[in-house]
Amino acid sequence: MPAALQSFDDSADPARVAPHLKLLRSAMAEAGVDAFLIPRADAHRGEMVPPGDERLAWATGFTGSAGIGVVSAGAAALFVDGRYHLQAPLETDTGLVDVIPQPPGKPSAWLKEHLTAPARVGYDPWLHTPAERRRLNKSLERTGLDLVAIDNPLDAVWADRPPPPATPVEVLDLARAGQSATEKLEAVADQIRRAPADALVLSVPESICWLFNIRGRDVAHTPITLAYAIVHADGRAEIFLNPLKLTDELRAALGDAPALRPSEELADALQTLGEQGAGVWIDPESSPAAIADLLTGAGATLVERRDPVLLPKSKKNPVEIAGMREAHRVDAVAVARFLAWVDAEAPKGELTEIDLVEQLEATRRRANSFLDTSFDTIAGAGPNGAIVHYRVTRSSNRRIAPGELVLVDSGGHYRQGTTDITRTVATGPATDTQRDAFTRVLKGMICLTTIRFPAGTSGQELDPLARQYLWRAGMDYGHGTGHGVGAYLSVHEGPCSISRRPSAVLEPGMVLSNEPGFYAEGEFGIRTENLMVVAEDGEGTDGKPWLSFETLTLAPIDVRLIDRGQLTDAELDWLNAYHARVFEEIGPLLEPPDRAWLEAATKPL
Amino acid sequence: MPAALQSFDDSADPARVAPHLKLLRSAMAEAGVDAFLIPRADAHRGEMVPPGDERLAWATGFTGSAGIGVVSAGAAALFVDGRYHLQAPLETDTGLVDVIPQPPGKPSAWLKEHLTAPARVGYDPWLHTPAERRRLNKSLERTGLDLVAIDNPLDAVWADRPPPPATPVEVLDLARAGQSATEKLEAVADQIRRAPADALVLSVPESICWLFNIRGRDVAHTPITLAYAIVHADGRAEIFLNPLKLTDELRAALGDAPALRPSEELADALQTLGEQGAGVWIDPESSPAAIADLLTGAGATLVERRDPVLLPKSKKNPVEIAGMREAHRVDAVAVARFLAWVDAEAPKGELTEIDLVEQLEATRRRANSFLDTSFDTIAGAGPNGAIVHYRVTRSSNRRIAPGELVLVDSGGHYRQGTTDITRTVATGPATDTQRDAFTRVLKGMICLTTIRFPAGTSGQELDPLARQYLWRAGMDYGHGTGHGVGAYLSVHEGPCSISRRPSAVLEPGMVLSNEPGFYAEGEFGIRTENLMVVAEDGEGTDGKPWLSFETLTLAPIDVRLIDRGQLTDAELDWLNAYHARVFEEIGPLLEPPDRAWLEAATKPL
Repeated sequence: MPAALQSFDDSADPARVAPHLKLLRSAMAEAGVDAFLIPRADAHRGEMVPPGDERLAWATGFTGSAGIGVVSAGAAALFVDGRYHLQAPLETDTGLVDVIPQPPGKPSAWLKEHLTAPARVGYDPWLHTPAERRRLNKSLERTGLDLVAIDNPLDAVWADRPPPPATPVEVLDLARAGQSATEKLEAVADQIRRAPADALVLSVPESICWLFNIRGRDVAHTPITLAYAIVHADGRAEIFLNPLKLTDELRAALGDAPALRPSEELADALQTLGEQGAGVWIDPESSPAAIADLLTGAGATLVERRDPVLLPKSKKNPVEIAGMREAHRVDAVAVARFLAWVDAEAPKGELTEIDLVEQLEATRRRANSFLDTSFDTIAGAGPNGAIVHYRVTRSSNRRIAPGELVLVDSGGHYRQGTTDITRTVATGPATDTQRDAFTRVLKGMICLTTIRFPAGTSGQELDPLARQYLWRAGMDYGHGTGHGVGAYLSVHEGPCSISRRPSAVLEPGMVLSNEPGFYAEGEFGIRTENLMVVAEDGEGTDGKPWLSFETLTLAPIDVRLIDRGQLTDAELDWLNAYHARVFEEIGPLLEPPDRAWLEAATKPL
Repeated sequence: MPAALQSFDDSADPARVAPHLKLLRSAMAEAGVDAFLIPRADAHRGEMVPPGDERLAWATGFTGSAGIGVVSAGAAALFVDGRYHLQAPLETDTGLVDVIPQPPGKPSAWLKEHLTAPARVGYDPWLHTPAERRRLNKSLERTGLDLVAIDNPLDAVWADRPPPPATPVEVLDLARAGQSATEKLEAVADQIRRAPADALVLSVPESICWLFNIRGRDVAHTPITLAYAIVHADGRAEIFLNPLKLTDELRAALGDAPALRPSEELADALQTLGEQGAGVWIDPESSPAAIADLLTGAGATLVERRDPVLLPKSKKNPVEIAGMREAHRVDAVAVARFLAWVDAEAPKGELTEIDLVEQLEATRRRANSFLDTSFDTIAGAGPNGAIVHYRVTRSSNRRIAPGELVLVDSGGHYRQGTTDITRTVATGPATDTQRDAFTRVLKGMICLTTIRFPAGTSGQELDPLARQYLWRAGMDYGHGTGHGVGAYLSVHEGPCSISRRPSAVLEPGMVLSNEPGFYAEGEFGIRTENLMVVAEDGEGTDGKPWLSFETLTLAPIDVRLIDRGQLTDAELDWLNAYHARVFEEIGPLLEPPDRAWLEAATKPL
């Protein structure tokens, strides 16, 4: 069931903001609140949310993947991070909504400024976590502003709100999952007993999908089914989801391990846990506050700890790793065909960014195992390449002038696994500045690719290795070096990452991206990204285990952008060996013209 | 007033442990406690403590700089970190005291195992901080073991306990301090007002010495005077210290800024703050719990925050930086003379480690401005070089066989500033393994020396840059890469460091060591250490400030230990330029024979 083609609509319509805010304010008045919070979030904390949860877009027009709106009777604000400072003002009605960068802006500061105490600040407890609520409560202490949980007033006035998605559940057999749900459940139950707790409530679909070896198509670009689950200390489990998602065949495939219950029964189940006086494990950073409230209201004790599925899910088992390798081979065929096409077409000066996106998706679709892109393709030419999270629309679409750098960041979900790759290519002679930047980025990426490190090292510790060559020239990039990647799950996955922020210790089987970059605003953008899997790599001289990375991604790096003089012999050896591997593994899978292109693109330097 | 020569005595005497424990246990019985905690600490949290505060050594024989003893009626344990796993069992009576590595060992676990609830665990509140006490209380929650503050029973039975030191206070004039105490006080008072608090209690001598531009000789190797101080929000200040430390001349030099009061009046002053209902700032990680208790007992409210002097003290002002540069030039003359002597004498096969320590100290003493070594010199030959915190004693002293590597880590306090330098030298042909390790260490040290980085970067982020070349070969070192260094103050100073642990953001004027190493147990040790000062270094391409390091230390690195083929051109250029600078700055200060040696040692490679 292929997803829809990427949309290039300028979906924002600032004209809708005024009537929507008016409706919302009438519902807020009815609910008796002086302000209302609208996070860009659903109850499942997903990066992708279904259309019926795009409340922030409905209220403010803003379609980005993160942000929070605050609406009072007389004012409204939209808080967005650095990725969206340019986009948000174009999408909302700036006459009615103040766009505020966060940081340094904070909704609590705005509330203190715009409300007169005493006042009531409404929020939907399904859309905030207990941790978020605690932080907000703390920042409103002694201000006379009270946080009040209410039924969502926006939902009450959103006339044509899309219904929740109900796509069929997909069940992974052992040959794809590599470990049975029963085995995974037993390990989680063991953690529950040791916490100690009586039960665990899960609300993040990626955790539930991994635990029960299921998937779904409820949202774009992330193969999940939206559900809740309860796991008991004795290993019993219940999944709460829309029964329409399950055929009898799927029920049979799922077996007896989990009881399947309609979503509506979740509240009853939480009530029962409460009546038993159970100790219930929830993750305060991802669980809806509403679940915490239902539990404590019914008499349960909360055990607040990190979701116990996050870590085992991130450590891919051998079957998952083999699947990721295979997905990358399949993806590499599409990427090689695409890059060959760009090389042939771009110099003619007719291609646009939308052409790139469409061609790449069409090329990926030729693979039988392709299911969806893993995110909207970022294809930025010239100055658009410098916009880190650029998504081309009909109005931003740019014709690629020969000689411009083109940055393409894309990925796919295949039956076997998930990919994410960025390549930056030249469409004509590059400037010395561009080659210098490209080479510094490449040196950082090679350094991180080839590093060995003692077990116990976190991704945070490795991050500066990728930045060091840029730093020496006063250059840097304003994003992390790498993120965790799920196996046929979310393309962004914790708890590991390679960034300046604290992150998990790296363990064998974790899959991460390696994607340093450099962005010259208004001129060009450069990013080179491979996925890598953490692997055991013998012992150090201290007899302790050492780790390193195995590269999964197999696509040529544009050697026309390399300043050869900057590379050490070891870096050059790596590049040539990598290119030899790319041609050896992917060449035989290509038709002769593309194979000839790949052979030339991977020639030793 | 030069300090005494380094002692080479094996000061430990396990035979004294039995009678001392017996005395202690009788005092514990009298105090009504079932166990007593003996941290290696004084009330001022110094790395160096005066002889009368060496309680842990008195009770257990252990003379290391960190550890904690726990004594019950029938058992005793000594918890020590990795530096002391070998030394502690040699110094204590292992028939009476269990030596336990910490981590993973923990006094709380030992107490739970060895006491029968209900039981009382005594501690001296002057020797533990509020934060330590909270952690200990938390780990003993619901065990029936109660922490009880008591007058120190060990002090009651320590017959010949040395009296507290009372060396004269030294007052730094503006030409040495670079900023007046009045100006510093005003800045601290401003922080107190903004906290908000009414007063600040300081108990760390380094903070007090920096704030009031004073020094002292109360402990070895750290030029501090032991004192307490109170700073009020209006800028008034009181110093509490032994009046014998002050002459009338010194009183005059100190001026009116601080009131000078005898130590005995501290409790009264805290009582007064309490009676005023003051909000009093203490650092819960360094203040004695006794001070917190006196304050709250008298009615004060605690404002628990980090010592506000730590950060400004670490950012040396231009006068301090100039002083540090000058101290390093003076020190470099001694180091060059010493290294020339080692080169001439070591191949004869007669030198011992003690000879090295004595020669180096004697050479440093030739400088008029020399005041003390900044720590006991570490001089390890062959396998002793692999013991990271090795201090030679008459029984461990080793004759240096020609061909062994010799590691010498040492430093001095001069009137102008403080130094800390490590060099590893060959006394004959080195093995390929040794040269490989030396070169990897050097590459890491050069990488860290030459890095530029954006303002806002912490030392933690830079640490892996120094390890990367070792890591690739499965090698590492079990200590931080660098520590902060005081200006004519403690050679180990926070809040900055370069290590795998979280540390402060680096700011201009901070002085840090850069000392990667490698240790082959039972064979050899390698460490190369320079001090560096953080300096502004223009802007990045983003228009934001960039920083880099200026090297302070000026001594040749033994090129006979370098595997030339491993160095990049840029690394070689750095080494040659550094050596040229060393000869240019230090050569003219040496007599002809030593100058000739330095010229040869710094010849371009």
